[in-house]
Amino acid sequence: MTQQDSNRILLAHGGGGRLMEQLIRQTILPRLGDQGGQLKDSAELDLDSSRICFTTDSYVVKPLFFNGGDIGKLAVCGTINDLAVAGSKPIAIALSLIIETGFEIALLEKILDSASRAARQDGVSIVTGDTKTVEAGAAEGLYINTAGVGVRCYDTQLGFERVADGDRIIISGTIGDHGMTIMSQREGMKFETPLTSDCASLWPLTDQLLTNCPGIKFMRDPTRGGLAATLNEIAEAANISIEINETDIPVNPTVQAAADMLGFDVLNIANEGKVVIVVAADNAEQCLAICRQNCLGTNASIIGEVHGADRQALVQMKTRIGGARIVQMPYGAELPRIC
Amino acid sequence: MTQQDSNRILLAHGGGGRLMEQLIRQTILPRLGDQGGQLKDSAELDLDSSRICFTTDSYVVKPLFFNGGDIGKLAVCGTINDLAVAGSKPIAIALSLIIETGFEIALLEKILDSASRAARQDGVSIVTGDTKTVEAGAAEGLYINTAGVGVRCYDTQLGFERVADGDRIIISGTIGDHGMTIMSQREGMKFETPLTSDCASLWPLTDQLLTNCPGIKFMRDPTRGGLAATLNEIAEAANISIEINETDIPVNPTVQAAADMLGFDVLNIANEGKVVIVVAADNAEQCLAICRQNCLGTNASIIGEVHGADRQALVQMKTRIGGARIVQMPYGAELPRIC
Repeated sequence: MTQQDSNRILLAHGGGGRLMEQLIRQTILPRLGDQGGQLKDSAELDLDSSRICFTTDSYVVKPLFFNGGDIGKLAVCGTINDLAVAGSKPIAIALSLIIETGFEIALLEKILDSASRAARQDGVSIVTGDTKTVEAGAAEGLYINTAGVGVRCYDTQLGFERVADGDRIIISGTIGDHGMTIMSQREGMKFETPLTSDCASLWPLTDQLLTNCPGIKFMRDPTRGGLAATLNEIAEAANISIEINETDIPVNPTVQAAADMLGFDVLNIANEGKVVIVVAADNAEQCLAICRQNCLGTNASIIGEVHGADRQALVQMKTRIGGARIVQMPYGAELPRIC
Repeated sequence: MTQQDSNRILLAHGGGGRLMEQLIRQTILPRLGDQGGQLKDSAELDLDSSRICFTTDSYVVKPLFFNGGDIGKLAVCGTINDLAVAGSKPIAIALSLIIETGFEIALLEKILDSASRAARQDGVSIVTGDTKTVEAGAAEGLYINTAGVGVRCYDTQLGFERVADGDRIIISGTIGDHGMTIMSQREGMKFETPLTSDCASLWPLTDQLLTNCPGIKFMRDPTRGGLAATLNEIAEAANISIEINETDIPVNPTVQAAADMLGFDVLNIANEGKVVIVVAADNAEQCLAICRQNCLGTNASIIGEVHGADRQALVQMKTRIGGARIVQMPYGAELPRIC
């Protein structure tokens, strides 16, 4: 094996033999840990409750490294967020790699370190995994799948069916940061204030909210499809209408500029560290205060409210200049490959 | 949209908008069901126990359809098997798709039907999922990740540390069927008796074994790396030696012929519906009888035993002609992309 070979992924690294064992022992286990050195295909967990939450996501983001994160951090945070916004405490993650032949092992190490850091920060363990290799060109470097298990440990019941007339809509911060960061990097755009992805775990915030704020009805992280998709999903599933105010929606000015230049509507742009909260009107100010005291929610804002009476399942926005527009579910072609 | 477009996957099917919602509602949910029509990023489960087993596997098999199965059946059975051989009862699966632009939706439907059938057969629910799309050529059609949750409901404790001197090694049937089926299809080889993958869920067999047979110490499905990799893993992790007899290892004659023609050692070839069982000597005949009464274990055989005294972590085989050879951990380059 040449020097160059030993620094790169070979097809045999996924063959289930000695070389895969070496990759797992030397590269993967020291970073992801928690396995007692064993190469187990499955992990045994003793949870605090038999009421669990279970989720999965595959990550195909391009580029693999972006301002504010990389595919490893994104995968772990994304799975933690799916568990967190469902009202559960994230416990364990299973991490599965599809790696292209020729991929630099040093880059893989960087990505695994980043995934591990994100998990440890929330006390989440990466407990099991899988490694597959494919021919050069077949996975654009690396795809990651993360599945997660959480424990449902809060009294609050969350669900579309709880959303009702008069409820307030809160967004935890500026929108569009992740999607526009990825897109501008892909387009080679430069700004005086560089765009940074909001990629982060929402768990510290959702934990505070579910522990201290009554009246929360529903939470969702507005990833692919952005705020527009999330609000439309809520309106359709709960059979209610939503009215939002453009002036109340926090947007980083550079994100807005980039979106305008590339012809995107920031409402459709993906976020990876924001949460949309539907909360009873009486608890809205308390919910907002909790968000703003948390570093994940400094720019939180009440952006609108639920109209249950007309039941048209529409999302409407009062524009900055006083008009009204329908916010449609995006079609899906706007921003591919942002997660 | 042209007629052709509407039959194939578009990049926008993974964009998180209206088109993805349509794909999920029209193609995925009717097949994988169990979600009450909601598009949830996570599933809430009420389990019978808080002692769970958690696993993940990505599937990159080539070709996607093979004699005896397809990537959908393979993914579901593989994840069920990881849970089953760990001594747990499979409960729920999360299924994540990475689909290439241009992939025929009819093929996707076939694969999802097949995944669904495999899950239902064992009473396992596919409870949550994810859909990503990538540019043409980037995922060779389709990759699937399945993660699984099972409940640890048996009294038997399984583990490398329980393996001891004198224990017997049982294989539940013929070896190499899956790997040689894939490889011969890829090479375009034809046989009078066509090769068929053994792709199957092992859960009905492991359930019978763990319910009715004491003395089981360890189980593992010998997938990538075959019987050779599994026995070497046991020997290394348990710090014992294993002696097997070539004459006792069941091999389908066509599989042997194909392996000989292509220059493979059947010991290294992947299985997708077989289990290696380490069992106390006193319980070996009972274990064998339970296997043989089950359609998954008709050709089960006691193939060797554990030598705990020398602790060299070696796997040796008495050959058909009376010689002895060391069975090494395969390197990994033998058979890529068989799962």
